[in-house]
Amino acid sequence: VSYDYVARLRARSVPELLSKARTFWDFAPLLPVDDLERRSVIDLGQGSTPLIAAAELGARIGLKRLFFKIEGANPTWSFKDRYVAVTVSVARAAGFRRVVASSTGNLAASVAAFAARAGLDAVVLCPPETSRELIALIASYGARVLIMDWDMRASALAELASAAGNFPVGLFMPGPISNPFGIEGYKTIAYELYQQLGSRIDSVVFPCARGNGLYGTWKGFKELDELCGLERRPRMIGVQPAGAASLPTAFARGAPAAATIDGAHSIATSIRESIASDAALHAIYASGGAAVSVNDRQIVEAAADLGSVGISAELASAAAFAGVRSLAAEGNLDEEAVVVCVLTSAGLKWPADLDRLRAPDVRHIATTKEAVIAAVSGQAQ
Amino acid sequence: VSYDYVARLRARSVPELLSKARTFWDFAPLLPVDDLERRSVIDLGQGSTPLIAAAELGARIGLKRLFFKIEGANPTWSFKDRYVAVTVSVARAAGFRRVVASSTGNLAASVAAFAARAGLDAVVLCPPETSRELIALIASYGARVLIMDWDMRASALAELASAAGNFPVGLFMPGPISNPFGIEGYKTIAYELYQQLGSRIDSVVFPCARGNGLYGTWKGFKELDELCGLERRPRMIGVQPAGAASLPTAFARGAPAAATIDGAHSIATSIRESIASDAALHAIYASGGAAVSVNDRQIVEAAADLGSVGISAELASAAAFAGVRSLAAEGNLDEEAVVVCVLTSAGLKWPADLDRLRAPDVRHIATTKEAVIAAVSGQAQ
Repeated sequence: VSYDYVARLRARSVPELLSKARTFWDFAPLLPVDDLERRSVIDLGQGSTPLIAAAELGARIGLKRLFFKIEGANPTWSFKDRYVAVTVSVARAAGFRRVVASSTGNLAASVAAFAARAGLDAVVLCPPETSRELIALIASYGARVLIMDWDMRASALAELASAAGNFPVGLFMPGPISNPFGIEGYKTIAYELYQQLGSRIDSVVFPCARGNGLYGTWKGFKELDELCGLERRPRMIGVQPAGAASLPTAFARGAPAAATIDGAHSIATSIRESIASDAALHAIYASGGAAVSVNDRQIVEAAADLGSVGISAELASAAAFAGVRSLAAEGNLDEEAVVVCVLTSAGLKWPADLDRLRAPDVRHIATTKEAVIAAVSGQAQ
Repeated sequence: VSYDYVARLRARSVPELLSKARTFWDFAPLLPVDDLERRSVIDLGQGSTPLIAAAELGARIGLKRLFFKIEGANPTWSFKDRYVAVTVSVARAAGFRRVVASSTGNLAASVAAFAARAGLDAVVLCPPETSRELIALIASYGARVLIMDWDMRASALAELASAAGNFPVGLFMPGPISNPFGIEGYKTIAYELYQQLGSRIDSVVFPCARGNGLYGTWKGFKELDELCGLERRPRMIGVQPAGAASLPTAFARGAPAAATIDGAHSIATSIRESIASDAALHAIYASGGAAVSVNDRQIVEAAADLGSVGISAELASAAAFAGVRSLAAEGNLDEEAVVVCVLTSAGLKWPADLDRLRAPDVRHIATTKEAVIAAVSGQAQ
């Protein structure tokens, strides 16, 4: 794999590339796979996700230009597909036979799918709280799922990663970023936002576990600016649950490294993580951004608000919108600012959580037309 | 709503429109919403779904150019979002306050989401077999869900549709096509396939309940051909379960109308329908296509095959691939033909079905690293 792609790109027309790109791999010259053989690039239709304008929700909280990036449109319905597409492509090109990962679900589903597409074996470690639906999805791709308590996963993954032929999709290390190839995949979020909104985005808001998505997106904007100039680099805003606030805790102190959280807890399983990436914290500082924590009640309210305008996002994603609301309420987002909230995964991943959003108004009707009319008009049956 | 859009389009450059369109509403000049006020067009990021090349699966069955259109990338994870986006836009523009629909799940979820986005009420009728997960999704958008036995739904929907201010998203009528505005939304599948593959597609394979998606896609190709010329119009191939084969039964007889199936049954809930649209049958005849039935075993095998290459589709969608396999095995698809198989919805909609695809190989490990290694190497613990 060659790393001189930025140098090579300076000699090319990046704006032209961006104006023509329609799919994820059209960005290959900006990714660390440019020199891989064509057969080694894995495609399941990842990326190219919609951006939707949220005028009504924005108006409720005093933002005129609020947008949602819908990462639930990815092939395994989360943003992880961008990370995994690049990682598994690199792993196969390098001759690995099996990919291994530790995940609450989104990463595991993606690894399972891309490994299947690549013809590689996959082994994923999931905690007992991963939803039945996600386990079924992961297994349907033919991956082996090992369910284990979280305190064992680091050593188990290290053991698996050390075996010949096994490639760790997510390196579980405190502090440093995860798999560097995967991070590059997240840059495509920046490229697509540039295509969709132009070069004047004020803030990008990301729900963070370790913060790899935030960091990779920031890296994408930074390189875009270096390569072809942006009107501005967006502020990167990381949102975490109050019970797993490794980034907000460090940010509040101006600390150089993310805090470690003992007993991390949150209703938002996908971002209930004890540590975050120092690179993500750096991206927040470097961009003039912020790290915000939100509590479980705020997260559920945000998910219900999204549902009320037709958007189903998992609770971890709804946390990002909760963060936007919190910042807007505190006057930390300008009314005119172009704000993008990244909704990283689909509500359908955790059906039990959907039931938290509102009292299910499901009625069993099996008798008469009159009963139907009564139910709809809100009368007692 | 004006219907003279084809006439107007003759004066425009359709090829240019198609070369520039990036999102669903970029096709608005080809849809019956061109004259609606901008505020009446509802967008959740529907359409613009990926097309992926399936070289390996194709090679297994003797097809060199097999592609999958991944409709599970839509905002409510099915192709229905195309139908509903247009229908609800029209309903709101016409002043309706509530949309009503009858559905096993995909249509209902879509109606719930788009109604929420549009600020309209939604009432949907679902049968008892709709998955818990789908009910939770529908309710999370704030729609009212009425669960009722299927034999009551026609009269219940007619009753609801007759009330002032209520707009029926799917008109439940034998024979005729459903909501004509919605059908137009499916034309965008043809436009996107033209963008993705050019004007030389040999066959498009669709799983069919009533066959609205097949008909709408055929209409899209037909109008494209009239407006700017195609190298060929694709053969439209409809696939239904053996227990609900209203189209294959009629097709085998050369009958002018779809058959009615008493006691329709199939493992593939979304396409277990007693009647189909005569318009779909007409599209099959007019395009030189075919109607094929597949049994439940073939459907499950097809879903497992899709999973083995990283694609999770609901069983109804897998039926389309089962149909492709069946036609290829019988020599009814040329090795060199460009064949597009439309995967209409996501596997995650029916998690219990995912468990049918393979024996779940889930192990509970909570003890030692050695146990992890043993599990991965296939040894007994």
